[in-house]
Formats: sequence, C-alpha cells, structure tokens
Amino acid sequence: MSMEKILWEQVQLVRQKSPLVHNITNYVVMNNTANALLAAGASPIMAHAKSEIQEMIGISHSVIINIGTLDEYWSESMILAAKTAHSTGKPWVLDPVGAGATSFRDQVLNQLLPYQPTVIRGNASEIIALAKANTTATKGVDSTAQSNEAVDAARSLVTRYGTIVCISGETDIIIDHQQEIFIKNGHPLMTKVTGLGCSATALIGAFIGIAEDKVMAVAAAMVLIGIAGELAAEESKGPASLQVNLIDQLYTITEQEFFNRLKIERK
Amino acid sequence: MSMEKILWEQVQLVRQKSPLVHNITNYVVMNNTANALLAAGASPIMAHAKSEIQEMIGISHSVIINIGTLDEYWSESMILAAKTAHSTGKPWVLDPVGAGATSFRDQVLNQLLPYQPTVIRGNASEIIALAKANTTATKGVDSTAQSNEAVDAARSLVTRYGTIVCISGETDIIIDHQQEIFIKNGHPLMTKVTGLGCSATALIGAFIGIAEDKVMAVAAAMVLIGIAGELAAEESKGPASLQVNLIDQLYTITEQEFFNRLKIERK
Amino acid sequence: MSMEKILWEQVQLVRQKSPLVHNITNYVVMNNTANALLAAGASPIMAHAKSEIQEMIGISHSVIINIGTLDEYWSESMILAAKTAHSTGKPWVLDPVGAGATSFRDQVLNQLLPYQPTVIRGNASEIIALAKANTTATKGVDSTAQSNEAVDAARSLVTRYGTIVCISGETDIIIDHQQEIFIKNGHPLMTKVTGLGCSATALIGAFIGIAEDKVMAVAAAMVLIGIAGELAAEESKGPASLQVNLIDQLYTITEQEFFNRLKIERK
Repeated sequence: MSMEKILWEQVQLVRQKSPLVHNITNYVVMNNTANALLAAGASPIMAHAKSEIQEMIGISHSVIINIGTLDEYWSESMILAAKTAHSTGKPWVLDPVGAGATSFRDQVLNQLLPYQPTVIRGNASEIIALAKANTTATKGVDSTAQSNEAVDAARSLVTRYGTIVCISGETDIIIDHQQEIFIKNGHPLMTKVTGLGCSATALIGAFIGIAEDKVMAVAAAMVLIGIAGELAAEESKGPASLQVNLIDQLYTITEQEFFNRLKIERK
Repeated sequence: MSMEKILWEQVQLVRQKSPLVHNITNYVVMNNTANALLAAGASPIMAHAKSEIQEMIGISHSVIINIGTLDEYWSESMILAAKTAHSTGKPWVLDPVGAGATSFRDQVLNQLLPYQPTVIRGNASEIIALAKANTTATKGVDSTAQSNEAVDAARSLVTRYGTIVCISGETDIIIDHQQEIFIKNGHPLMTKVTGLGCSATALIGAFIGIAEDKVMAVAAAMVLIGIAGELAAEESKGPASLQVNLIDQLYTITEQEFFNRLKIERK
Repeated sequence: MSMEKILWEQVQLVRQKSPLVHNITNYVVMNNTANALLAAGASPIMAHAKSEIQEMIGISHSVIINIGTLDEYWSESMILAAKTAHSTGKPWVLDPVGAGATSFRDQVLNQLLPYQPTVIRGNASEIIALAKANTTATKGVDSTAQSNEAVDAARSLVTRYGTIVCISGETDIIIDHQQEIFIKNGHPLMTKVTGLGCSATALIGAFIGIAEDKVMAVAAAMVLIGIAGELAAEESKGPASLQVNLIDQLYTITEQEFFNRLKIERK
C-alpha cells in the first residue's frame, strides 16, 4: 500500500474505532482538545486525580501528558500516569510545553522522560530544550527556532529514550531510529490560535492508540490537522474563526481533500 | 395552562429574573457552561474554594455539582457544597460525569447522594452506574447504553434520594415519583461537541433556581437546549460551528420556534 | 502627537514587539484570554505553580492577576506573583473578579493591594467593593452599579496605592492622580459573553508591558477591545458568534476602523 493510502487508512480507523484517549493536559486547551478529539472520531477523557489515574489509564487506549499549566500536584499525577503507561505498555505522548522556560518544568520533564514516551511532540525550541542539545532560549511557549535546527536534539532523544520525536513548525519533522518524515501541511494563521499544538498532540495520542505502525500514526495525525488547518484558513477571517472551522474540518474532511493536499516526504 | 405554555413561561422567567447559578464544574466545560447560562439569561458564578463556597451558595439561587475533572480537593469542595445546599434548602443539580469509570468517582458520588440532589442529570450509562442497578460498563464519559435501559436505575434513585432524574440521550427521560416525561428534541451532532450535557445540567440549575414546579423546570431546560441544538445544526458545518450557533440560539430563540419544534410527552 | 495617534501607535507597538504576558487567571477564561492576546499580537503564558512563578515573571513583560476562580493555593501563587512583580519593577494588572462577594476574596485582595498594581481593572461593583467606599452588594461577578458611581472609590484606590484604575462598563473610566479618561466604545451584547472583561485586563497587561505612558496604554487596550466588539457585533447573531468575531477583529482591525470609531474624552 502507498504511504498516502496508509495515512488515510489511519484517519478512517480512528473514526471507526473511536479510541479512548486519556488526557492530563493544561487548562487553556482542555475544551478545544476534547473537541478536536471528538471531531476526529476519538473519545476524550480529561482526568488528573491521583486517586483515579491508574484506573483511567486501564480503560484507555492511550495517554497524553501535556505540562502546559503544571503545578506540584499535577506534576505528581503526570509522573504517576507516565509510570503507569510505561509499566502497562500503554502508548503515551509527551507534550513538553514551555520546556526550558523554568527549572521546575525541566525537573518534571527529567522525571517523565525515563518512562519512555512513545512520542514526544513539541516545537523546535522545546525539543532543543528537552534534549539540552544547546542553549537556545525558549521565549515562553512559542518557538524561536526553526524545526530543522532541532533535528540533532530530536535524534538524541530518539537514541536515549527509544521515542519517536515530532518537531512541529512550518515543516513538521518526525524522527525515529530508522527514518525522517517531512510534512509541509498547515497554515501560518494556525500559530495565532492557542493550543493547536496541543490538539496535534492529542490527535497523535488517538492515532497511536490503535495503530500498529506508530510512525505512520504520528504522520497521519500531523497531516490531518495540517490539512484541516489549510481548509479552515481558506474560509476564516481571523484566528477565532480558524479554530471553529478547523474542528469542523476534522469532522468533515474527505479522502479527496486529504489526497489533494497531502505534502509529505520520507527520507 | 397547557404544558407547552408552562414550559415557555419558564424560559421567559429565566430571561427576566436572571438567577445566579453557582457552578462547581469541570475545567473542560467552564467557558461554554458560563456562556450557555448567560445566553439563556442567567448569571453564572464559577467558584470552588472551600474558603468561600458557603458564602457563594448563600447569594446564589441554585448550585451545580459536576464531577468531570474532580480531584481530592475538589471532591471535598463538592461535598461541602452539597451539604450546604441541602441544609439551607437551596436547589442543586448533580452531574455524575463518568460515574462507574473509577472507584474514586463512585466513592465521591456515594458521599454526595445523601445530600439529596434536587435533580440528577446524566447519560444512561452514568445513571445506571450511579444506581448500581446493573454492571453495564461506562466507556469513559460517553454513554454506551440507551436512555430507556436506565429507567429502572432512575426509579431506584428517585425512591432512595427523593430526587428528580433526567436521563439524557436521543430521547431525554425525566422521572420523579409521580410521572415520566419524554423529550425528543435535539440533534445527533450534539454528541460530537464536548460538554453539551454539562450545559444542559447548568441550564437545569438556572431553571430550578426560580421555578416552583421543579419537574417542569427540568423539562423546560432540556427542551430549550434540544431545540437550540436543532436550530443550530441546520446552520452548522460541523461540531464547532454547532457549539457557536447553539449558544447564539439560546439567546435568540422565540416563542414561535419553541412551540413549532417542541416534542414532549408525559405519562 | 494627537491622543488618537498615540493610541493607535500603542496598538501597532504590541503587534510589532509581541510582549510576553504572564497570566495567573481563572479557568473560565484562560482559552479566550490567550486567544485575545495572540490576536492582538502579544504572546501569552499561563502558569501558576509556586515552583516557577518567579522565573516566569523574570522572562515576562508584564503580569496579570485575575482572582476569578481563586482558591487557597492559587491565592498564595497570586500573592507571590504580586510581590515578585512589585519588587522587580514589572508592571502588573489586578482584576478583582467578584470583589465583595465573599470575605475570602476580600482577604486575598487586601493582601494583593499593598504590592501596588500598576493598573486595576474591574466593573463598578468590584471597584466599589475593593475600595470599601460604600456597601453596594456585588451580585456575583456581574456589575449592579454604573461606572460613574465608582469614581470616588477609584480615586481612593489611586491615592492609597498609586495605581491607575479602569472602571469598565457602558462608559469605561480610566483614572490616575492627574486625569480622567472616558471611553464610550463597546456594545451591550459584550456583557452576554463570559470573560470579555478578563480579556480587557489581559490586553491592558500586553499594552503596559511595553508602553512608557501607562495611562495611554490602558486607554489603547480598552478602545481596542471596545471597537473590536462593535465591529464584531455588526456581524454576529448572538453572544457566541460575537466572541469569535471579536477575536478575529482584534487580529484584523485597521487604522481606519480604529480612527472612525474611537470615542474618547480626557478631562
């Protein structure tokens, strides 16, 4: 099967199987993350209590850990969730929001990484900070570096933690120990909407929850949100209508639209 | 007065009297819950601190307790709120999100129920789990059962706690010790928007905050959101535009639209 | 330069310099606050952990403290943030949501005020409660008083804390020790959207983060959101589409639209 068909098959699988995705994510994006998951066909759970995390992971297909608005309690929940996912073989995605911005974030990330996230998705600055590959400063939660500058950092994370790394940006780059995939879908206006990176992370979680080929699952999720963003941008007057239209597009996108717009390359 | 007129009268009462509704609800839905209440004419408060809950309930017309993203602190707040509402005779609504999904949720729900919620609103799986009427598994927060399968569970809750139960689904069923009401308003696309059930719960809170006939108040709230959803679906391209249009419709809905679409039956 | 040109220059400065705004705000509005900041050209951070607040403030241009959904932990974070902003000379804005509604809120506000907020923005009821200028009751988080009734309270806060006070309402009134500015932009439908006051507060934070003339910065932020609201209302069917259109307008608003609609008066 061609890579194009494999990717679309993943989109259809999520719509058919409706994987249950357990999110420990940030307050800012919970609503549109849940809506993005629902629109793509998945079933979101948002739960963070230490008293129930292990049971919630038990009934879920995958776990998202996004440190956006972490605090001391939530970081303990996240570590417990990562540990549980790791020990029970449940796929999980780490979104290292604002890595490098404070020492607290870096300490928590260093406690999460040993539980070997199936996938790490971040912007270039975050991936660089996470790997401590160099000292590029993170400016808040937005990236000040380009995706290709983070490739060495990503490779280092792949080697150390056996993870797949997805560096998102104008070009998304997906790296594992065997290959690099470059995706050029998306639209610049998407950077003016809060939390679309977090939605991408959540979609990755939905896709890896049911796919056998995890790299193709990550690629399918990134292509899906990128194309949905392109289609949405064409009918939007600004960032808020883009957010609305993007979620609508996740729900309505067709095979034809997907194939017509797909811009992916594997090396 | 006909039941139809009584229901519309409730909608108008909320618009005129703007009841103050105190919400202890989940992070995912706080924004659209507040906007749904405002659009329907009510005045929302979101507050959860143990240090102020009793005072907040003192100035409110009703209280919503929604356990969606509960944790140990929030569960204590909720129990304090339920106790305060019960002892001061303030109407309150319980939304048992994800009942049955974890033992923590069930423990908290078992501590809340003795404070006799005026109304419980949940999907069929949640109502069944809440009554432990059988062992149907909850799949996350979405229902895997039909409304009618939960009727026995609902009757058991009515008997034990003197509450009104609203099972929401394709058909909404409202049950108290005297009657059963069936509502067939709404649209399937509403299940693809996160938290519309929570919005329904909040609207119930607004309506019972000022109405004498609590059962008619619950029915009016469910009809209102159902019809708003139908009107919204006709002008929406997907779930995100449905959410926007539904809140707009809560604000603009007319007597004529309400009467034309009302699908209610009492047994 | 005319006051009109000074105001527009502020709007352009935010778009060019993209100030980093650190928000400790409430759960209800985090998403649309972040989106309002992004649309206006600023860069939002939402973070509340005591373990990282000081570092976050270190990299930010300004700080927002909004007590909407405060609790015991968050109030400690807020006090630490206010203290840090004050001692490091970082401009900060206080949004005293629901001041006067509970004694807990008032206690926390009394601990925040000595750190001399650069700006306080609230509705008339909140400003009155904050100054304890009289005993007008706050009805939840919505104002029951008119802006002009709060002028004495505002003057008292200016004198005691060296702050700028912005009373928002049908007419926004900005007061410091030298002047009073009256702004009549905005639209009544804005009161039916949750958290537009909080968005105004956040925009004030963005503007004072880079402006030398803080009073003009506050005025520019209030005019901007007021005009964006007017333009949005003309194309909206209700409060939810107003929210979407308002954020789009923050992103697209032109010099011509700004000058055509500006309604400001200085005394």
